[in-house]
Amino acid sequence: MDDKKETSLKKPVRKIVPRRYDNRKQSNKSPISINKAKDKINIDNNPVKIMFLGGLGEFGRNMFVAQYKDECLIFDMGLRFPEENMPGVDFIIPSIEYFANNKNLKILGVFISHAHLDHIGAVPYLMSKLNYPPIYTGLLTKEIILKRQSEFPNMKKLDIRVIDAEKNNHIEFKNFLISVFHVNHTVPDSVGFLIQTKQGNVMFTGDYKIDFNPVMDKPADLTRIVKLASMGVDLLISDSTGIEKEGHSISEQEIFQNLEVIFMRSKGRIILATFASLISRLQQAIMLAEKFNRKVIINGYSMKTNLAIANKLKYIKVSSKTIIDAKEINKYKPEELLILTTGAQGEDNAGLMRIINKENVNIRIQSGDTVVFSSSVIPGNEMAVQCLKDSLTKQGANIYHYKMLDIHASGHAQKEDMKLMLNLVRPKHVMPFHGFYYMQKLFNDLAQDVLGLRKEDCILASNGQVVELVKNKILLTSKFIPANYVMVDGLGVGDVGEIVLRDRQALSKDGMFIINIIIDRKSKDVKVLEIISRGFVFMKDSNMLIKETKEKVNKIILKTIKKTVNDNVNESYIRNILRDEIGLFLFQKTERRPMIIPIVLEI
Amino acid sequence: MDDKKETSLKKPVRKIVPRRYDNRKQSNKSPISINKAKDKINIDNNPVKIMFLGGLGEFGRNMFVAQYKDECLIFDMGLRFPEENMPGVDFIIPSIEYFANNKNLKILGVFISHAHLDHIGAVPYLMSKLNYPPIYTGLLTKEIILKRQSEFPNMKKLDIRVIDAEKNNHIEFKNFLISVFHVNHTVPDSVGFLIQTKQGNVMFTGDYKIDFNPVMDKPADLTRIVKLASMGVDLLISDSTGIEKEGHSISEQEIFQNLEVIFMRSKGRIILATFASLISRLQQAIMLAEKFNRKVIINGYSMKTNLAIANKLKYIKVSSKTIIDAKEINKYKPEELLILTTGAQGEDNAGLMRIINKENVNIRIQSGDTVVFSSSVIPGNEMAVQCLKDSLTKQGANIYHYKMLDIHASGHAQKEDMKLMLNLVRPKHVMPFHGFYYMQKLFNDLAQDVLGLRKEDCILASNGQVVELVKNKILLTSKFIPANYVMVDGLGVGDVGEIVLRDRQALSKDGMFIINIIIDRKSKDVKVLEIISRGFVFMKDSNMLIKETKEKVNKIILKTIKKTVNDNVNESYIRNILRDEIGLFLFQKTERRPMIIPIVLEI
Repeated sequence: MDDKKETSLKKPVRKIVPRRYDNRKQSNKSPISINKAKDKINIDNNPVKIMFLGGLGEFGRNMFVAQYKDECLIFDMGLRFPEENMPGVDFIIPSIEYFANNKNLKILGVFISHAHLDHIGAVPYLMSKLNYPPIYTGLLTKEIILKRQSEFPNMKKLDIRVIDAEKNNHIEFKNFLISVFHVNHTVPDSVGFLIQTKQGNVMFTGDYKIDFNPVMDKPADLTRIVKLASMGVDLLISDSTGIEKEGHSISEQEIFQNLEVIFMRSKGRIILATFASLISRLQQAIMLAEKFNRKVIINGYSMKTNLAIANKLKYIKVSSKTIIDAKEINKYKPEELLILTTGAQGEDNAGLMRIINKENVNIRIQSGDTVVFSSSVIPGNEMAVQCLKDSLTKQGANIYHYKMLDIHASGHAQKEDMKLMLNLVRPKHVMPFHGFYYMQKLFNDLAQDVLGLRKEDCILASNGQVVELVKNKILLTSKFIPANYVMVDGLGVGDVGEIVLRDRQALSKDGMFIINIIIDRKSKDVKVLEIISRGFVFMKDSNMLIKETKEKVNKIILKTIKKTVNDNVNESYIRNILRDEIGLFLFQKTERRPMIIPIVLEI
Repeated sequence: MDDKKETSLKKPVRKIVPRRYDNRKQSNKSPISINKAKDKINIDNNPVKIMFLGGLGEFGRNMFVAQYKDECLIFDMGLRFPEENMPGVDFIIPSIEYFANNKNLKILGVFISHAHLDHIGAVPYLMSKLNYPPIYTGLLTKEIILKRQSEFPNMKKLDIRVIDAEKNNHIEFKNFLISVFHVNHTVPDSVGFLIQTKQGNVMFTGDYKIDFNPVMDKPADLTRIVKLASMGVDLLISDSTGIEKEGHSISEQEIFQNLEVIFMRSKGRIILATFASLISRLQQAIMLAEKFNRKVIINGYSMKTNLAIANKLKYIKVSSKTIIDAKEINKYKPEELLILTTGAQGEDNAGLMRIINKENVNIRIQSGDTVVFSSSVIPGNEMAVQCLKDSLTKQGANIYHYKMLDIHASGHAQKEDMKLMLNLVRPKHVMPFHGFYYMQKLFNDLAQDVLGLRKEDCILASNGQVVELVKNKILLTSKFIPANYVMVDGLGVGDVGEIVLRDRQALSKDGMFIINIIIDRKSKDVKVLEIISRGFVFMKDSNMLIKETKEKVNKIILKTIKKTVNDNVNESYIRNILRDEIGLFLFQKTERRPMIIPIVLEI
């Protein structure tokens, strides 16, 4: 890379004039403070309550409430993907039962830190139920939220007010004053918030890292963070994702240089797979394509829409000649092409998998292709990614992934970045979010180590747990508001619960076994009409077992009927007996426990 | 650690007199050769066929066949754990359809490289079907195989002949000569084999690493490997597991020193979780317990039996006073206890999970416990291990895991060890096993790089594919023998196939929907007797949907019956119509696709 280019890359080139959040005052001066009268005696004992509806001890479903009297602010509104033991579930969103149960509560605004699904994904599901309070967020985030909203039918228009972290934006309410600051992440317009209240100040980092050489972005605004923190931060709510990683997070600039090496080496097509939401990474790939005279094909719906929005708003820089349609692929030589695609996690229906499975009309893997996985592997996806790599190898591609070369950087602060943030903010209390419980604990250990905080100053809360702030003091209460999983499955929101899931798990393990019998009330004749097995044994290969089971059913029912005093055959009793005894019988024969479903018809 | 101790650790202290494989000659002299007459013209065109029944492009289910004319040798007989999309399956074993289809084949012997389940796990399932050929393996492996066999009822006694790698053991057949050599792994008595044939020599590394400072073991026998290789190795079948890891594998001695640091630091109980089969690691932990005056509790059935066998055979060294019963736990102070437990992968029923879930009668996690995960996380288990860590943190334990400190070493050679092995053996062809396809490819790249082999000398085979060795030349043919998955589920071996699995997957995703109707043939009256939904929607909350569905069913059937010309209502036609139309109806209502099961009764 020549020096000129390098310099130009280091300079953030974005110059956008964001639409302003119109009816609020803005200033470039020192941050304003809601509780200048801090030294006066505060006789107000109404706590500010901080309550997470999701995002503690888990990844995704980020959402918390800050409440003072009957006024609430909401921060983020994300979704998470289901766990392994939740088959069929599309995703999980936070529960808003708290608001349903407390109709007096007023939601003054919803503050969104950045445009990732784990922070915006529940917007289409929850806003209508919360009577569409105004949303405050960055310009890019706004457009991405609106795009997603447009895919859901029958939704009211969202009232989204653009805030700009560079302009020292404040949003003022009677009892809250919100200030915004810029942080680095893997999508532009990522921000954190300072929440000033009558009882003290809470700083929320959002998802952040500190990158002194970001691509098409400015470094996190450390000066502003310090200025805001100078008003005293009673509680720092901090991203704890990267706590297990030593050192500083890798700069996007370093990623850029490593990707450049791959571009220099590759003689065939380059296929770069990453997350659709990693807009900074997509920008880097496009820059490199332009430098190395490659045309770019975008493969994947969400990637296309995200890039279109970012391009329209000038958050990325791309020549109009760079992007070509996939249909034009054959007009170019392999060395003239870069394919950007979704599906780096081995997701079934995403871009890369469809190429490998030959479902993509225009793009096939060919010998000499270089496939670059510019993403980490999300826990749980390891096997899927491994299969992807195997298929790619079989089809003749060379592979680069993040374990071989630093071609992916997480969007989250690592240990040294966290130390820096803690030192800049010097909070009196900390409360980690965005991490498993174990990571939150490690973050608290770090805060104690770095700032000399006491253990009780480091809050290890669970979802729903009420954290109170009164007179600059933090109390982790033992009160809880509802914060259960709300599962989305198809069109159903919240209708899949424990029982349905337990049935699915049972069915998936050993299948089911339907016994359809008819009983003649008068003659006490029993006939097994039908046995249907699904997912238990293959019926055609199990004639013997089916025959034996039928005989067993006959015996059980005859024995049961004999015992009945009058004609009154108790159907539900027969069902129970069949479930128990045939269950046991089949277990002895197979050591499997299918779900037994007796269908009893009396005539 | 004082010098004396360190020295004593470095010296292998095992002195066992293994039972010898009795009716074969042994020597400490140079390896003998079956094809000394190599220079003579070989007019025999019968190939030696190498065929993997499992272990290529996957982990587990290791088994391959070496065949010359109608004589076969089998190497290893392992199982693997199911993939995510195989709910209910316990494990997968190799198919032996090839032997069932070719009754003329004689199996001269089964050679087992070491005592891990992915190399011995299929023995109880396959030996009876193969008419119990003799097994050749190390003493410890023999006893572990026998212990496992004893847990399966109605099995004939296995004929296991002990081979000792240290004694230059050869096993001679008319057309094969097998030599054994010692390698390092995570269980003692791990060996590789040289297979000499009329057509050339094949070396099989087994699972190996090269450890110059093993614990209670000797370093891999490099001298012997070189001596054996000096007869010319036409094909090296090599472990490729560690190909993605740079450098040399970590010595068990280094693990020992890091574990020692934890023992020095920990003031409470130490709970060390690892694999039951990692006998070397268990030995280390016991040594440290003895050094630091801690009693040892073993928690987990398989760990107990493995240790008992290793102890009986003097493969480990443990004072009779060290191991105590879990019932005695309260007689000792926390700092006097080490608990060795299974369950480091977060397995539901293993030792550690039962402690956390308070199902263990004697052992509970208490504040101040130090939990050490001395194992890596097997891909696919990440989330389970994360939950484990979260629960442990909540219950007050401190955690050490392999990402924080080198307290686990893989049993597999890394890149530099592989380079060493390739240089010692200098094979004419290589063929990687024990790895995904992608890893096998990387191994072949390495072999080309290190030895200057041509691409066509590096075999990238699939399970079942026939590799032929004729006159010291290797040919990857396009012939295949059956090598499909045989799934074990409960007592069933091989009865779970594609269809059963597909049903389980479908049931797990969207559940099922049973429609029970009765049709009066004469009056053409239709009655929906019952709708049963499991895993689809929660019935109690879905009255409306059930009601609408019943109406829809009625309509569909009436319309269908009307069309029938005579009384002959076609039952199977009605079933199909119901499946299609109600399936569509429910999808429109819910965007879910439950399995529709119509039960139609005509009277």
